[in-house]
Amino acid sequence: MTVTSGMSEEMKPESISLCPLGAAAAPVPELLCIFGTGDLGRSLGLRLLQSGYRVVYGSRRPHSCGPLPQGAQVMSHTAAAQSASLIFICVHREHYEFLETLASHLEGKVLVDLSNNLKKGMYPEANAAYLQRLVPGATVVKGLNTLSAWALQNGLLAGKQVYLCGNSAEAKQAVAVMATKLGLTVLDKGTLSAARELEDFPLRLFEEWRLPLRVAIGLIAFFFFYLLIRDVIYAYVEQGKDISFRIMISLANKVFPIVSLIMLSLCYLPGVIAAFLQLYRGTKYRRFPDWLDRWMLCRKQMGLVALGLAFLHAIYTFIIPIRYAVRHKLISLVVDEMKNNKTTPFYFDNTEAWGTDSFYVLGILGFFLYVLLGLTSLPSVGGTLSWREFSFIQSKLGHLTLCICTSHGYIYGWNKFLRPSTYKWYTPPGYMLCLIVPSVVLVLKVVLLLPCVDRTLTRIRQGWERTQPSEEMGVTKATNL
Amino acid sequence: MTVTSGMSEEMKPESISLCPLGAAAAPVPELLCIFGTGDLGRSLGLRLLQSGYRVVYGSRRPHSCGPLPQGAQVMSHTAAAQSASLIFICVHREHYEFLETLASHLEGKVLVDLSNNLKKGMYPEANAAYLQRLVPGATVVKGLNTLSAWALQNGLLAGKQVYLCGNSAEAKQAVAVMATKLGLTVLDKGTLSAARELEDFPLRLFEEWRLPLRVAIGLIAFFFFYLLIRDVIYAYVEQGKDISFRIMISLANKVFPIVSLIMLSLCYLPGVIAAFLQLYRGTKYRRFPDWLDRWMLCRKQMGLVALGLAFLHAIYTFIIPIRYAVRHKLISLVVDEMKNNKTTPFYFDNTEAWGTDSFYVLGILGFFLYVLLGLTSLPSVGGTLSWREFSFIQSKLGHLTLCICTSHGYIYGWNKFLRPSTYKWYTPPGYMLCLIVPSVVLVLKVVLLLPCVDRTLTRIRQGWERTQPSEEMGVTKATNL
Amino acid sequence: MTVTSGMSEEMKPESISLCPLGAAAAPVPELLCIFGTGDLGRSLGLRLLQSGYRVVYGSRRPHSCGPLPQGAQVMSHTAAAQSASLIFICVHREHYEFLETLASHLEGKVLVDLSNNLKKGMYPEANAAYLQRLVPGATVVKGLNTLSAWALQNGLLAGKQVYLCGNSAEAKQAVAVMATKLGLTVLDKGTLSAARELEDFPLRLFEEWRLPLRVAIGLIAFFFFYLLIRDVIYAYVEQGKDISFRIMISLANKVFPIVSLIMLSLCYLPGVIAAFLQLYRGTKYRRFPDWLDRWMLCRKQMGLVALGLAFLHAIYTFIIPIRYAVRHKLISLVVDEMKNNKTTPFYFDNTEAWGTDSFYVLGILGFFLYVLLGLTSLPSVGGTLSWREFSFIQSKLGHLTLCICTSHGYIYGWNKFLRPSTYKWYTPPGYMLCLIVPSVVLVLKVVLLLPCVDRTLTRIRQGWERTQPSEEMGVTKATNL
Repeated sequence: MTVTSGMSEEMKPESISLCPLGAAAAPVPELLCIFGTGDLGRSLGLRLLQSGYRVVYGSRRPHSCGPLPQGAQVMSHTAAAQSASLIFICVHREHYEFLETLASHLEGKVLVDLSNNLKKGMYPEANAAYLQRLVPGATVVKGLNTLSAWALQNGLLAGKQVYLCGNSAEAKQAVAVMATKLGLTVLDKGTLSAARELEDFPLRLFEEWRLPLRVAIGLIAFFFFYLLIRDVIYAYVEQGKDISFRIMISLANKVFPIVSLIMLSLCYLPGVIAAFLQLYRGTKYRRFPDWLDRWMLCRKQMGLVALGLAFLHAIYTFIIPIRYAVRHKLISLVVDEMKNNKTTPFYFDNTEAWGTDSFYVLGILGFFLYVLLGLTSLPSVGGTLSWREFSFIQSKLGHLTLCICTSHGYIYGWNKFLRPSTYKWYTPPGYMLCLIVPSVVLVLKVVLLLPCVDRTLTRIRQGWERTQPSEEMGVTKATNL
Repeated sequence: MTVTSGMSEEMKPESISLCPLGAAAAPVPELLCIFGTGDLGRSLGLRLLQSGYRVVYGSRRPHSCGPLPQGAQVMSHTAAAQSASLIFICVHREHYEFLETLASHLEGKVLVDLSNNLKKGMYPEANAAYLQRLVPGATVVKGLNTLSAWALQNGLLAGKQVYLCGNSAEAKQAVAVMATKLGLTVLDKGTLSAARELEDFPLRLFEEWRLPLRVAIGLIAFFFFYLLIRDVIYAYVEQGKDISFRIMISLANKVFPIVSLIMLSLCYLPGVIAAFLQLYRGTKYRRFPDWLDRWMLCRKQMGLVALGLAFLHAIYTFIIPIRYAVRHKLISLVVDEMKNNKTTPFYFDNTEAWGTDSFYVLGILGFFLYVLLGLTSLPSVGGTLSWREFSFIQSKLGHLTLCICTSHGYIYGWNKFLRPSTYKWYTPPGYMLCLIVPSVVLVLKVVLLLPCVDRTLTRIRQGWERTQPSEEMGVTKATNL
Repeated sequence: MTVTSGMSEEMKPESISLCPLGAAAAPVPELLCIFGTGDLGRSLGLRLLQSGYRVVYGSRRPHSCGPLPQGAQVMSHTAAAQSASLIFICVHREHYEFLETLASHLEGKVLVDLSNNLKKGMYPEANAAYLQRLVPGATVVKGLNTLSAWALQNGLLAGKQVYLCGNSAEAKQAVAVMATKLGLTVLDKGTLSAARELEDFPLRLFEEWRLPLRVAIGLIAFFFFYLLIRDVIYAYVEQGKDISFRIMISLANKVFPIVSLIMLSLCYLPGVIAAFLQLYRGTKYRRFPDWLDRWMLCRKQMGLVALGLAFLHAIYTFIIPIRYAVRHKLISLVVDEMKNNKTTPFYFDNTEAWGTDSFYVLGILGFFLYVLLGLTSLPSVGGTLSWREFSFIQSKLGHLTLCICTSHGYIYGWNKFLRPSTYKWYTPPGYMLCLIVPSVVLVLKVVLLLPCVDRTLTRIRQGWERTQPSEEMGVTKATNL
């Protein structure tokens, strides 16, 4: 019965013209309006049509506005505005004035402002705020502006995150439902006052990478000059030898692993600090200080910068034996050996063989785990892991990597730290300095793993609080997932 | 009755204010109920609202349950249960008892149990089975429990696979439709008896990696001790030399490539076995034995473990020339050369140069293809390939890689296998043992590629059966894609 | 009206039995028909059910067609065809004839042809065109044929791109809406005449890789023979030395970096050509010539082939010191040094040390940036970048990589290009040839970066045209995003 009645309706001429294929009881799809027939307007309209919406374009020249997606209607701005309750503004901010003249027709409508600017701070006011001021009777929602016409055309939307802000929860909800139907994921950023922030999003350039890169560059600069003085300048001043050629590879191959190890330990330091803060406070319900939050948010980027430096260290090391200086030294060694005409056979130091081989093996294993950590931070790999697997890799395997790389550093200096010649001009060598932070992190981590500390921390993370809060709060927390 | 009252409410003016943007003929969106206002409940509610559902929360304290997503209503458990037909239970299992008191209100409802446990086997009964026992009049669907509040909040749902099980096909269908709207992909795992399995999913830790890792560790242990005896202990016992320092690098650099090659061939062995089984049975419609199925399911992981070992082998090899022992040997060689004061010029063996260079080149090409195979197994890379491209890479390129790596192994021993000194204590060297499985796989693969065999196999895989089945079955199979 | 009648129908007992869980005001879901109960038909039906559609199968034996997804109905072809307006044809082309007998029942329906062929050009006519000829009264839409039953079963659809073509815009729109609901992204390929192209899609094998691979193979072959003559044959003819063993590694390690650098510069050449073309034409609104378009479309693949060759070059270089020939040469050098019994100490050339070390460092940094570029071309990594970040990496970082790698090449020959011995048989060495294209690209790029040129180009890319078009066009372009 259902089907038959549905079909009989289907036969009626007027419903056929609107939606001739709408099967059985499909309701008439929602009508959305787009102002602007440029690249963005056209691509957006196409996606909306494919998601089952009807689309009407508002244009100042409805009869000469170029090719539009099949199935869309074109009207004057006024007619289009009246036909729909949701209007996408795909027009440059510079041309918003015409909307002021339409203000009466836009009363009560939701206007979605998708505009972006060419650079930050071009206007004193966010585009969306300006729009709201022009059309005070409408509800402006800022959002979707991170979508490019190119992404829309090529259907690169699945799972892409978009941001919304606006003063009306209902208006945002309506836009969010529409965006979800397009396959997008919506994140609400609050009221329209966040519009400026949203308009700056597409202009961002590696913002979450800035802090890690700055730390890395700062550390590299410090260690470069420190080692330049200790190695090259020291040799020139004290021994009169010009070994400046060592800057290119030998020096760089000391700076990179040093900074890499420090960056890796800086990845795990904030987690340890946070744990001690929770232990001290006795609750997980108080926010961390801002600097700690920011630090924790860029741990992934810190780790990847560290991996990059470790990668450079690895290649620099592989290249060592083909260097001119190294081959020269080897030949000189043999020649000296011969010239001195020693009668004792060339001595093989078993301890030295064990020591250097262990040093290399720890380096190789550390690098291997480093690469593994880097691979699981790829979005598509991380996405296939369960939460438990992800935390196993990033926490257990991460601390193991730190531990192995720190041992790699300790073995490097195992037989040197007592020799006075190690402390040129009374300064410690670079590898000693770089072991401080990792050692501190590892010691603190071991403290956290002590059964008594670990038990308390686990309880705190499950919602327990040392200073028992009001009974009601406690129950709510315990009841819900 | 429930449904009618729900609809009549929707018609009232104030409810229209809830959804003022409902365009043209948009129907009132479906109302879903969530019990529990914790992290999971709130994140789930937010996503449901964004996907166009209306959401009502059931709470024991509707007026003091903390911040909930904008647009959601909060009611008592009873009122909330009555308003919707689908109820999400976002409450810890320990607090399920209160549902028993609501049993009469939950009659005929679908309850979706999203709960997880902290570890396996905490309770004798699955949470969902327990829930079903408490509320026998409701239809319990277990599922979506692999979603974390974190993934829901951050919109990491697109394409994510979730599992469902339950005794009612209609109830599962309703939940599946809802989940699909959220961008999830649903896999039906059968009746409620699968609930325990689903509840164990989030607690899984690299389950599909366990078999490959166990095989790898077993093989590594075997070859390590085998080579330890043959190389280090043999040298100590028979020649009185302590070469134990070779354990760290030389021995490891034999074990890793050996195990890597065996693991790679174990990737391709099950495919070959399956083909011969199909040829023997003359049909593709009979299931493979369980062990073969399990083996085939972990081929990707086997290959990646093999790649990891090959990567280690590569780095171990690059590091060789900077090792103390290697440099020492080189210097000793020269010194000896000089001491002996040979008059003949130092002889250059052209065959040796060709042999070792070919050996290295095969290793490099094999590693290159290995890495290529690994890259295409990244989810995001594999997803962009057509089926034909994927099978080209994984089958053709995979067998080529196996072939090249096996040749790499054969060339290693090309001039050694006839020397008696190769068979210390009458044991074959490690590289000979490791060539057995790859050689068998390659020979069997060549047999499968013979035109006559290949033709039969292709026909079988297209649905042809040697023992012609009943006429009807045959037609159905031939007709449908 | 439609909605009201739909809702009142919902109250009827028999429709409730179809969808007992439909909450509040949910309309009866649309009914779709699938002809064919094979793997593809069943998987498609399952996904459609999970996306909230009702599904009816058309089968010639409705009572014995094997397991179908729960919730689907099975009918005879005729009954099934009448119940729905959209019919998926999941039947092999060879069995299409039965549709001719159903032609009267298929009048006015939309038939979606999902069929594929086993190889290209099996039939003179596209399957969809054949179907349209058999059932002239129906509207045939070709599409979705890139989906495999395997992908449908495993829910690997999110964001996957599918293609549609057909003569009716409404029919395509209906199929597009359905496909979007399944999580797919739809690209319209025009009228039914594109059906053959769509049917060839699943048979494609790395089509976008063919041009880059052909260029790479051509260049490799050319430089291989060029260097073979210059190095190996020259040495044999002029000096009577057999250095053929160098083919395996030394020669390959010259050919790979040469071709890699040329391929990398070929990535950036089309962008530069396009910029000059835009400058010359004074507009961005005229299409590029076809060859340039094709070239620009395979830049990513060119870059990845170049990266692969650079990777090989890196490994070949790391392996150098363990080669027999290299170690032999080193030993011979020392032995000669000793035999000659020089009294002067073995001389250390500081310039040589600086030169070779700079050479290696540039190579390492170039390779590092190369790998970085390759990583950002991974779909999942590139997808997380904003447009500005992506273009920063691919353009700024890309040109920097090209610049560094070109310097790597220049330094290689810094002190050789004036020596007559460099020009064996009056031919320039390989590294000189390979520097031509990169140098040209870099010079042209520098010209484009001159402020006056850059300003004009930016204006052109923002839509400005030198020959001002009709007033109307200009306004439209300036107004819309």
